[in-house]
Amino acid sequence: MNNQTTPIKSRVSRSSRAEQRQDTRALMVRCGIEMFTERGFQASGIDEIRSRVGVPKGSFYHFFESKQTYGLVVIDAYAEYFERKLQQHFSNLSLSPLARLRSFTEDAKQGMQRFQFQRGCLIGNLGQELGGIDDVFRDRLEAVLQSWQRLTAACLRDAVAVGELPGSTECDNLAEFFWIGWEGAILRAKLTRNNDPLDRFFAVFLITAAGKQ
Amino acid sequence: MNNQTTPIKSRVSRSSRAEQRQDTRALMVRCGIEMFTERGFQASGIDEIRSRVGVPKGSFYHFFESKQTYGLVVIDAYAEYFERKLQQHFSNLSLSPLARLRSFTEDAKQGMQRFQFQRGCLIGNLGQELGGIDDVFRDRLEAVLQSWQRLTAACLRDAVAVGELPGSTECDNLAEFFWIGWEGAILRAKLTRNNDPLDRFFAVFLITAAGKQ
Repeated sequence: MNNQTTPIKSRVSRSSRAEQRQDTRALMVRCGIEMFTERGFQASGIDEIRSRVGVPKGSFYHFFESKQTYGLVVIDAYAEYFERKLQQHFSNLSLSPLARLRSFTEDAKQGMQRFQFQRGCLIGNLGQELGGIDDVFRDRLEAVLQSWQRLTAACLRDAVAVGELPGSTECDNLAEFFWIGWEGAILRAKLTRNNDPLDRFFAVFLITAAGKQ
Repeated sequence: MNNQTTPIKSRVSRSSRAEQRQDTRALMVRCGIEMFTERGFQASGIDEIRSRVGVPKGSFYHFFESKQTYGLVVIDAYAEYFERKLQQHFSNLSLSPLARLRSFTEDAKQGMQRFQFQRGCLIGNLGQELGGIDDVFRDRLEAVLQSWQRLTAACLRDAVAVGELPGSTECDNLAEFFWIGWEGAILRAKLTRNNDPLDRFFAVFLITAAGKQ
């Protein structure tokens, strides 16, 4: 009996330790998304993150080899979460393609409101903070924005296909324009503490898109 | 003789001390503009600013009562400098009003290039970093953007007056839209390390403006 049960027990406890480790790591990533979005990367101390999650002193580096590695993992997690959000909106076939884009903007407005206009977009925030001073972050952040642009361009192409946008629409350029302005609007909404900049930008975007861009 | 010269000497040296103090203060403000624009407010240490300018340890607070006060003075100095720049472009009567706006954007592009796309706009950077977490900064930064918007709206009204823009143009809204998107484009240019986002935004802005916003 012992010969059989001991190895099983040991396997179980090993796997539950691994699970616990995974959970702790996931918590740390989630805490990073919150703190980096609200305060930025440089102002968020490893020690505070560690203690918020309840990880013992000194063991942060058992999970991530450096603060930069941690930052990149946090960016990837946020990018994935946000990509899923975009995909959900853009695949909602009960709405027209431009209404899908609008439903994404309404969702984002609710998010801004939920956090009292204090958070904004992690990618925009870190882009502003680190874009000029760290090439590794810069490349990763630009890649994330480009992936969002590709999804948005596909949605705009759907809008062309159903006649919501003119056939001459350059969807890739328009998607790039959308993300340039949208990140600017998110930044501005942190200053106005309301969604007016998001509404203003999106209204003009729709006119431009429908018009003759 | 002594009765006359001593007070004069003393006045001279007092005034030269005051001048020196003014110069040092101006240097500190200039250093703050550079450092805050490149690295942000929280990541810029008082000690590094002090030592860059050559101010003895401990005497930073003879010039500014707190880091926040210093930050606000730096913001005001940048805002004034930038307002002068806008006014220069917008009062250039040898150009049409929209060409004046374009000449400002070309000037900004050169500035981005000169600093290898590492700096961007102090107001956008601090807005991103502090807008969500500090009400005093938030209000000041929003006021600066609104003052730039007013100047821009006046330029757009000139464009309406000479027939470059339709009479129905809502110049205040369009100026707000310009600054929302322009700050987004500056942020993005830090990631792409080129002026493409500024060109993309301004091209679409002009189409929108001329069209039917």
